[in-house]
Amino acid sequence: MLEELKQKVCDANLMLPKYGLVTFTWGNVSEIDHEKGLIVIKPSGVPYETMKPSDMVVVDLEGNVVEGDLNPSSDMPTHVELYKAFPEIGGVVHTHSSYATSWAQSGLDIPCYGTTHADYIYGDVPCLRCLTKEEIDEAYEKNTGVLIVDYFKKTGREVLAVNAALCKNHGPFAWGKDSTDAVHNAVVLEEVAKMAYRARLINPEVQPAPQELQDKHYMRKHGPNAYYGQKKYVSAGDDGV
Amino acid sequence: MLEELKQKVCDANLMLPKYGLVTFTWGNVSEIDHEKGLIVIKPSGVPYETMKPSDMVVVDLEGNVVEGDLNPSSDMPTHVELYKAFPEIGGVVHTHSSYATSWAQSGLDIPCYGTTHADYIYGDVPCLRCLTKEEIDEAYEKNTGVLIVDYFKKTGREVLAVNAALCKNHGPFAWGKDSTDAVHNAVVLEEVAKMAYRARLINPEVQPAPQELQDKHYMRKHGPNAYYGQKKYVSAGDDGV
Amino acid sequence: MLEELKQKVCDANLMLPKYGLVTFTWGNVSEIDHEKGLIVIKPSGVPYETMKPSDMVVVDLEGNVVEGDLNPSSDMPTHVELYKAFPEIGGVVHTHSSYATSWAQSGLDIPCYGTTHADYIYGDVPCLRCLTKEEIDEAYEKNTGVLIVDYFKKTGREVLAVNAALCKNHGPFAWGKDSTDAVHNAVVLEEVAKMAYRARLINPEVQPAPQELQDKHYMRKHGPNAYYGQKKYVSAGDDGV
Amino acid sequence: MLEELKQKVCDANLMLPKYGLVTFTWGNVSEIDHEKGLIVIKPSGVPYETMKPSDMVVVDLEGNVVEGDLNPSSDMPTHVELYKAFPEIGGVVHTHSSYATSWAQSGLDIPCYGTTHADYIYGDVPCLRCLTKEEIDEAYEKNTGVLIVDYFKKTGREVLAVNAALCKNHGPFAWGKDSTDAVHNAVVLEEVAKMAYRARLINPEVQPAPQELQDKHYMRKHGPNAYYGQKKYVSAGDDGV
Repeated sequence: MLEELKQKVCDANLMLPKYGLVTFTWGNVSEIDHEKGLIVIKPSGVPYETMKPSDMVVVDLEGNVVEGDLNPSSDMPTHVELYKAFPEIGGVVHTHSSYATSWAQSGLDIPCYGTTHADYIYGDVPCLRCLTKEEIDEAYEKNTGVLIVDYFKKTGREVLAVNAALCKNHGPFAWGKDSTDAVHNAVVLEEVAKMAYRARLINPEVQPAPQELQDKHYMRKHGPNAYYGQKKYVSAGDDGV
Repeated sequence: MLEELKQKVCDANLMLPKYGLVTFTWGNVSEIDHEKGLIVIKPSGVPYETMKPSDMVVVDLEGNVVEGDLNPSSDMPTHVELYKAFPEIGGVVHTHSSYATSWAQSGLDIPCYGTTHADYIYGDVPCLRCLTKEEIDEAYEKNTGVLIVDYFKKTGREVLAVNAALCKNHGPFAWGKDSTDAVHNAVVLEEVAKMAYRARLINPEVQPAPQELQDKHYMRKHGPNAYYGQKKYVSAGDDGV
Repeated sequence: MLEELKQKVCDANLMLPKYGLVTFTWGNVSEIDHEKGLIVIKPSGVPYETMKPSDMVVVDLEGNVVEGDLNPSSDMPTHVELYKAFPEIGGVVHTHSSYATSWAQSGLDIPCYGTTHADYIYGDVPCLRCLTKEEIDEAYEKNTGVLIVDYFKKTGREVLAVNAALCKNHGPFAWGKDSTDAVHNAVVLEEVAKMAYRARLINPEVQPAPQELQDKHYMRKHGPNAYYGQKKYVSAGDDGV
Repeated sequence: MLEELKQKVCDANLMLPKYGLVTFTWGNVSEIDHEKGLIVIKPSGVPYETMKPSDMVVVDLEGNVVEGDLNPSSDMPTHVELYKAFPEIGGVVHTHSSYATSWAQSGLDIPCYGTTHADYIYGDVPCLRCLTKEEIDEAYEKNTGVLIVDYFKKTGREVLAVNAALCKNHGPFAWGKDSTDAVHNAVVLEEVAKMAYRARLINPEVQPAPQELQDKHYMRKHGPNAYYGQKKYVSAGDDGV
């Protein structure tokens, strides 16, 4: 079942150690087949060194395991909430990547200080509040997803234009059109978090990039008249500078 | 004598350079066979490049060399004190890993700023005081162990829930169920120290994670109803996120 | 057409990932054949892993594609402006290298804090203003080049003595006698940006190196009586200390 | 002439890129044969990738080239001054290693914040003043050596106990019993500089380690009753923790 997607999701998971986003097994990637309503996700606690496509777990949109001998990632209910709320999301990734997690621990949004950020993320990366004790006790992972969904519903920001959020005192979630794109966005987030960290230390009075510069960079890559790369739409791995 | 354990302890020592925790030979790992009352430990000053199981030294709980041609690590008496005081400790590791040592030099506890920390360590990582001149002159390495033991006895914190401590102006000691687990915890400590360092620089007013979030993360991995990974108990290398 | 130059420019582009200056494809290098008035530049959005000389694009000094199936880097008009204004420039590079970009985000010039800087760059690395909305709307990439050119024309600083500039909230451009030299200077810039960042954090009152020390180091490498390396003129890859 | 020493000095130079202390060719190592009064030193500006023992240059204690087709490192006169003043120095190294150079740029001594430092360096690493314009004009590299020598003569500190110094706005020089030991000490210096940098950022009120702790660690490795490693004297590559 979904053999091709299992291969792709396994490959996307293996990009996490390749890009230095994980220590041990601290990350997970999934992708949804929206037509079938089925999600392929990394199993919980399997080392990347030996991970193979057949280890991937298939779950439905209620989070029930449909296929697979292993337990799905324990963050699976967070992924499910994102897929249920946003049909434009095809892949989700969670990591404890070092700089993004440091921002999450600090409790601050990552402002858009430059075009590296604006090329991929439109506006700041929000740092969402901690869950309450009640939310944690009721359903921690699911309510983490609900919190992210609520933020986007309330603010009206678009999930493919703001492709990541930080959970306070926890770490980042990122997403994209598919699992490859989601991991790509997680790599961008980590780079952006690193530069923003340093920019603040160099100049504590640093200000976000002017709005017109943010608009220009985001739009030349993602707007209707995008002229970056070799085709109109710039996909992951095709992001010329 | 203890050939299997020598192999395991040698492998655990070789994980230190693999995970970037040591420069030159600045680290040592041991494991105890509690039944036999014997400890296998790295020899002093042997380069990792050529280290082999037969270089490991066997000492008893009085610190006497029982087998081995080489001197044991000079920190051996610290290891011995930990094993004598806490039967639940099976492995001990000392390194000068960069971020954890920087915290030790700063003289501050590492607060629990997030779930990466809470997933493995329950509460802050204590930075213990320097030894007095008298304690240093009497028996430096042994008294370093006594200091750590006293801290846990006095505070009542559990050594497997708080699996590391910093010695002020010196560096970290970490431990675990066995030598592999101890090294795993030393890697976690270094990551946690790195993120906490950055979180403080991003936001000097950063606060520890809410207690209920710390409880949730520690318990979902280590509590009686843990649901991380593929079995009830999550061992080293099996720490799914 | 220009097969040798395509090989050289391709090689220079591949130095960017080798020296850790790029994530994904966030960089581009070009070189001009001043006699023919033709520029060879990296195509937009082609991954470094598979890049080959025949992917390079040839453009003229009006920015028209003369040869090549792929779109040139979208920053090409910036390169063109630099070549048109300064015949002494033979190669241009743009990256989002981490430390230099952090300085660009901070909006500050990189002062000459030491001889590592003075060995290659005479005086501070200027951080130029953001373009206005009008300049962005009219011709963003071209006007970025115009801004850099104007800075050097107005200040009278020499482009081969100050071989880089930061564009505020964006990132660095560097240049040199040819594409190899330009990449070499981009590596130097990143190292210089890294050290300056740390020097400021160690000592917020840090001051630039004394002028006589800056003069000595720049001149012993680049002055008429230079005595560094194995010949009078020190080229890239021949920069003995 | 001195074929064995050329091999050794070449190997020591190649340790610089191996341990990450140099970018391009920004470093040089030498060793003296005190009996013959001859120094073997790296040539100026030869890339590490292709460096071979026969490239090494032999100079006498007046700095005259005795053998070798290439120019010696331009820092050679600094090395010569150190050898002339201190017969206990057998090897000298100069780098622009990143953290140590950042401290040199900051103009501050590196305090002894912990035992990593005290294990190898007794007391702080001094940051010496810039040369005056007169000293620069007269003989820059020679006077850099004179400045270092004068510091040790005036303070009475021992050069093998304080095996490095920073030149303000420039970078570190380190030395040791031979070229291998000198490079070893340069690696230690870089680690010590890195930890001290971070300790200051974690806690701006950080204080040096208590004197009795510094004494204990230095003496257990280097004192008459040293008990580290496998023999009385702990040489490079034999520095057990």
